[in-house]
Amino acid sequence: MENDRPVVGVDLGGTKILSAVVRADGAILARAKLPTEASGGLEHVIDRIAQSVFDAVREARLSPADVPAMAVGSPGPLDPHKGIILEAPNLGWKNVPLGAELEKRTGIKTFVENDVDMGTLGEFVFGAAKGADSVLGVFVGTGIGGGIIIHGKLLRGAAGVAGEIGHIVVKRNGAACNCGGRGCMEAYAGRWAVARYIHKAVRKGRRSSVARVVKGDHVNLTSGTLRSAWRADDKLVRKALTRACKYLGAGIGSVVNLLSPEVVVIGGGVFEALGKELLPITVKHIRRNAMEASLRNVRIVLAALGDDANVLGASVAARQRLCE
Amino acid sequence: MENDRPVVGVDLGGTKILSAVVRADGAILARAKLPTEASGGLEHVIDRIAQSVFDAVREARLSPADVPAMAVGSPGPLDPHKGIILEAPNLGWKNVPLGAELEKRTGIKTFVENDVDMGTLGEFVFGAAKGADSVLGVFVGTGIGGGIIIHGKLLRGAAGVAGEIGHIVVKRNGAACNCGGRGCMEAYAGRWAVARYIHKAVRKGRRSSVARVVKGDHVNLTSGTLRSAWRADDKLVRKALTRACKYLGAGIGSVVNLLSPEVVVIGGGVFEALGKELLPITVKHIRRNAMEASLRNVRIVLAALGDDANVLGASVAARQRLCE
Repeated sequence: MENDRPVVGVDLGGTKILSAVVRADGAILARAKLPTEASGGLEHVIDRIAQSVFDAVREARLSPADVPAMAVGSPGPLDPHKGIILEAPNLGWKNVPLGAELEKRTGIKTFVENDVDMGTLGEFVFGAAKGADSVLGVFVGTGIGGGIIIHGKLLRGAAGVAGEIGHIVVKRNGAACNCGGRGCMEAYAGRWAVARYIHKAVRKGRRSSVARVVKGDHVNLTSGTLRSAWRADDKLVRKALTRACKYLGAGIGSVVNLLSPEVVVIGGGVFEALGKELLPITVKHIRRNAMEASLRNVRIVLAALGDDANVLGASVAARQRLCE
Repeated sequence: MENDRPVVGVDLGGTKILSAVVRADGAILARAKLPTEASGGLEHVIDRIAQSVFDAVREARLSPADVPAMAVGSPGPLDPHKGIILEAPNLGWKNVPLGAELEKRTGIKTFVENDVDMGTLGEFVFGAAKGADSVLGVFVGTGIGGGIIIHGKLLRGAAGVAGEIGHIVVKRNGAACNCGGRGCMEAYAGRWAVARYIHKAVRKGRRSSVARVVKGDHVNLTSGTLRSAWRADDKLVRKALTRACKYLGAGIGSVVNLLSPEVVVIGGGVFEALGKELLPITVKHIRRNAMEASLRNVRIVLAALGDDANVLGASVAARQRLCE
């Protein structure tokens, strides 16, 4: 059967492209990883994606003709129905018909999806939220992305951009956000916001082992650096991350009230690095902000699939959309 | 066919019970309204509900045996699967098996649902959100309730309590809310919160035509009183309601980002009284808080069914659940 054949899932990031050939049961037959080389421009990056797909397919001892479909998890906003990336700021893209371009290059039917949606779908089908009917995925990295499963189905929303939990307002008229708004959860709890907070404190004379890292460009503060500083008991880093968890608690608690999901999965770079430390603090603050009835029925867990979540989710999307 | 026979929808409120006999096409064949008389106690109120159902059925020239099912929209939290009201503070109820009790009294198969969910379902099937695939319903009265339609289906959530948009946090650590939390949207924009705000301002010496009404008990400030004061250009009332709309904008804007719904329906007593005045202000603040991509695809409209929304929605639920 068509649907039993392996498909390809692609995770398109600003720095790397990960492609995987995946069986229906979630077994990864082969992987390929390439630097994105975003500075090389649009055509170059699309060629790189095609190359990584070819690499993975060859590694699995298949040919592209054996693969009925692939899906690319891409930063958004994007139009999943038309396969168009509307905007990908970290790639410098606007209105790119990625699906059509990749079909031209690979001959493989290509679907385009939001990367965080794919992470949520991966955790839902193969990971920490397996078997649930409703899932909220929250991925805390530089920014904060989210994905939602309702009635066992990914919520794309009328605009194809549902799940933007990073931009729910947890403090009206609060801190400035990258989206142009104010008081978004991301503006307090995304890694860039944590770096901004540390940077401001350092400028006021607070000490920190990451003082030099946050100076100038906030993006240099990696999750690994945060982990080392936390574990070395860097007081300012601990304070900044604890504060981030408070805002995560307010935002996630709100959504628990709103959607009453069976499972909340929290992942992304920051929680991959410091999940054990940050999850209990976050859960405490979710409990403060959500109501008893919603809390009684929700499990709050760490993501389980790490870097593979997006390609696994993309393989599920490719398979599902092929049958629609 | 079973499903073409008229069913009964009931709206159970703290002060009145409204029952209606409704055809599959949404035509209301008969209505009956009774005061709830909550002070009479549990058994009395359940008898009153049964009475109002009998009244409506008789008015429609039917007998209870002609009615295959009914659904009661009740304040929550409740368990729609078991038909149990977990808690209804305005009725003084805890763990009441309302479904079973009404079946005993009426002989009619009875389902129990959240009242605001029923309002949303009514607007979705017969009202302002007809034909949409995803709907966010926001009902602003004394408190703020919400309902969510996703993939054409009411979202009940794992706890059966989904849709609690009144209790999403729009200001972390902000104003105290009736739910025990802080900074909830309801604590700024529910009618009780508007009354609290006016009351505090009056105590500080501000003048208002409603000064005497908000003194002591906040619940006496009705939506009709607010409308009269707004239209008489009462500066404090206008300021309080404009402020409420700002917080509604933050909360609803957040949920537009999260769910990217096709339609947002805003109703409830406050918007039934002052919808024309308050909707444009609310929309302005939703636009400030939601992202372009989500906004491009959403319609924000006033509820269209008024007092009938809940009984109409309940009739839809009764029909759907009968066939499950």
